[in-house]
Amino acid sequence: MIDYSAFFAAYTRRIERSLIRELLKLARTEGLISFAGGFPDPASFPVPELQEVTREVLSTNAALALQYGATEGDPALRDELITWMAKDGIRVKPDQVLVTTGSQQALDLLGRVFLDPGDVVVVELPSYLGGLQAFRACGADLVGVPQDTDGIDADVLAQTLARLRREGRRPKFVYAVPDFQNPSGITWTRARRERLLALAREYDTLVVEDNPYREMRFVGTAPPPIIALDPDGRTVYLSTFSKTLAPGLRVGWLAGPEPIVSQCVTGKQAMDLCGPALTQAIVTGLLRRGTMFARLSGVVARYRQKCDVMLDALAREMPDGVRWTRPEGGLFLWVTLPEWVDAGALLWPAVEEERVAYVPGGSFYADGTGRNTMRLNFSYPSEKEIQEGIARLARLIRRRAPERAPQPVHTIHSRGTSVSD
Amino acid sequence: MIDYSAFFAAYTRRIERSLIRELLKLARTEGLISFAGGFPDPASFPVPELQEVTREVLSTNAALALQYGATEGDPALRDELITWMAKDGIRVKPDQVLVTTGSQQALDLLGRVFLDPGDVVVVELPSYLGGLQAFRACGADLVGVPQDTDGIDADVLAQTLARLRREGRRPKFVYAVPDFQNPSGITWTRARRERLLALAREYDTLVVEDNPYREMRFVGTAPPPIIALDPDGRTVYLSTFSKTLAPGLRVGWLAGPEPIVSQCVTGKQAMDLCGPALTQAIVTGLLRRGTMFARLSGVVARYRQKCDVMLDALAREMPDGVRWTRPEGGLFLWVTLPEWVDAGALLWPAVEEERVAYVPGGSFYADGTGRNTMRLNFSYPSEKEIQEGIARLARLIRRRAPERAPQPVHTIHSRGTSVSD
Repeated sequence: MIDYSAFFAAYTRRIERSLIRELLKLARTEGLISFAGGFPDPASFPVPELQEVTREVLSTNAALALQYGATEGDPALRDELITWMAKDGIRVKPDQVLVTTGSQQALDLLGRVFLDPGDVVVVELPSYLGGLQAFRACGADLVGVPQDTDGIDADVLAQTLARLRREGRRPKFVYAVPDFQNPSGITWTRARRERLLALAREYDTLVVEDNPYREMRFVGTAPPPIIALDPDGRTVYLSTFSKTLAPGLRVGWLAGPEPIVSQCVTGKQAMDLCGPALTQAIVTGLLRRGTMFARLSGVVARYRQKCDVMLDALAREMPDGVRWTRPEGGLFLWVTLPEWVDAGALLWPAVEEERVAYVPGGSFYADGTGRNTMRLNFSYPSEKEIQEGIARLARLIRRRAPERAPQPVHTIHSRGTSVSD
Repeated sequence: MIDYSAFFAAYTRRIERSLIRELLKLARTEGLISFAGGFPDPASFPVPELQEVTREVLSTNAALALQYGATEGDPALRDELITWMAKDGIRVKPDQVLVTTGSQQALDLLGRVFLDPGDVVVVELPSYLGGLQAFRACGADLVGVPQDTDGIDADVLAQTLARLRREGRRPKFVYAVPDFQNPSGITWTRARRERLLALAREYDTLVVEDNPYREMRFVGTAPPPIIALDPDGRTVYLSTFSKTLAPGLRVGWLAGPEPIVSQCVTGKQAMDLCGPALTQAIVTGLLRRGTMFARLSGVVARYRQKCDVMLDALAREMPDGVRWTRPEGGLFLWVTLPEWVDAGALLWPAVEEERVAYVPGGSFYADGTGRNTMRLNFSYPSEKEIQEGIARLARLIRRRAPERAPQPVHTIHSRGTSVSD
């Protein structure tokens, strides 16, 4: 037998399969109601429009749409992306835009372009698991800063940056998911965005703004994207059509300062030469029709309705001591159980006994905290499944989660320190 | 001004934009005849079939084809790939197959999974530039072994492996492009494939077999793929539908020992979560129709014809002292100029004065040799362009390339050493 592990690089010890991914497999199991994935509602896919556009592309443009394309992405798509971003006050030129395989490839590219092993990245507590994974794969040291309901805790961020400076460690960037964050659903206020940029300037670091959910706003007015508030060119902006059109196209992009984008283009060339020209041509065709906004308002209404159904079910079903966020948009709710409850330990009973799945929140915390939290997705399940699934989850929590903290265990060595401290 | 370079990782110093890529941009310049790209002939794209299959996919399977998919790739596609590979004697199970964004993503994945900075990879002289780039990006030390007309020089390979063993450096793998190699067009004999595997066993190393051109055989009988001759599980096999269907779908794959594939799956998850479900569903639909072979025989006939046109033009036009390969298949011819001629220095005159482009061969040589070689692509240009382009190239070589070696320059410090040594 060949010992393959003897051939593997250090990289393989920094990557791990995500719990979410293994759960995505469960999501197709019969009878299970899954709040675990981050899937859009398939009913939101514009199938007839995609059929029309694809027919047009293959009728009129097959020689280009089926050929190798530019590493940067289809020039026509990049022009459309510039227009698309301009509605949010983002002003960039074509050589500041790179089309990627979803946002995840942009995260991976930025990790490789910026991060040597041991480099510091500041992340929110909690933060998007795909970002944490991409940065960890590069050997980064992830330093967490907690959120409150207005976004990242800017005072703690300031203290963290000051401490890192004293230690002689400049972070390569702060990773921010400011609109309806995955996983917490929290949106940063404008003041927090401006504070972040002021701190980035003070400490001479960069910002990676990951913004896949921005179009999915149910209520209120959107603060500008961080990049639109940044006069310095410290921000790289990531987005995707995975939520607004369909994830199966895998069309995302990044935009930012040209020297950074240029390095990402060179990296992408060695990674996959170029993305599929066909899916890029399809997205270009759809954007040119100018129907995105009208269609999106329908998708947003659907998700708002599902979110409301989940909020109502939570209020109706959950025992005292369970709290949750009320997101202004996006795909996720964030549930906090009493601090002595381990949501990770509840997952298998949830699947086995109640046929309901969620993502335990701990994996979103770079510092290993958050064990009493869970992420619930409301975009994919039907309203009926949401009601039934929340009822199942509440039943499980009532049955399996202790109603109060376990009694402190006093020992000779531990004077009055409870395990729930 | 922000000094972005102060933020960049060591990775950015290991990647560079390829000359080929910059030349691909030229390829769309008016009036230029380009032998530089590796583009299939767009007339080979099965457009009506793709239209039908795409309509079927979006009519019957949109909810899956537009959704996130498994990181490993569409299970139906993986089953089809197993059947597709079985025709060549390759026997693998589903968990030994991973769908990638072209072969290039497989090269990048293997680089990351296997290579720490300083690790040795043995490559052919010359070898595929995309492979060299992916391995260099990981900081690998590329050790070259020359080819002859039967493939890699197995005696030199044996000597190289013995030398590396004496130095205590076990290569992570030997990188082989055994069928109609890009760039040289050379095909390894069966004996060379078996010798490679015997050496891999003797020196306990692995083999990465990159085989994108295998279906493109004009004449003769194909030796088995290396992986089909390997009883030990030392080989990872890479292929793609970029040549057989269309590069714009970006559907490639790798197959090999499960522990290796499993690490690649975990890596791909952090890289892009999953490839586009839509293009995978389209390829699956095309494979299920069972029309690939009939269609491919037409594509192969077209490429054989173009190759013959190029061979005839070379024989007619080129001055004495210029040699070229006669490939049994694939997309490329390899031209060797007199050893004192620098094909790289001729490129700009070729483009500026004669409006013809090619790829200087030096970049395919990991050891910096091969400066007097060039790669010519015959799949993309028309027959008329091939004839005209070769005439232009020959004119340039007659005008610009010295007919004989420059006289040795004797100096006090260099006793009798000619610059052409």
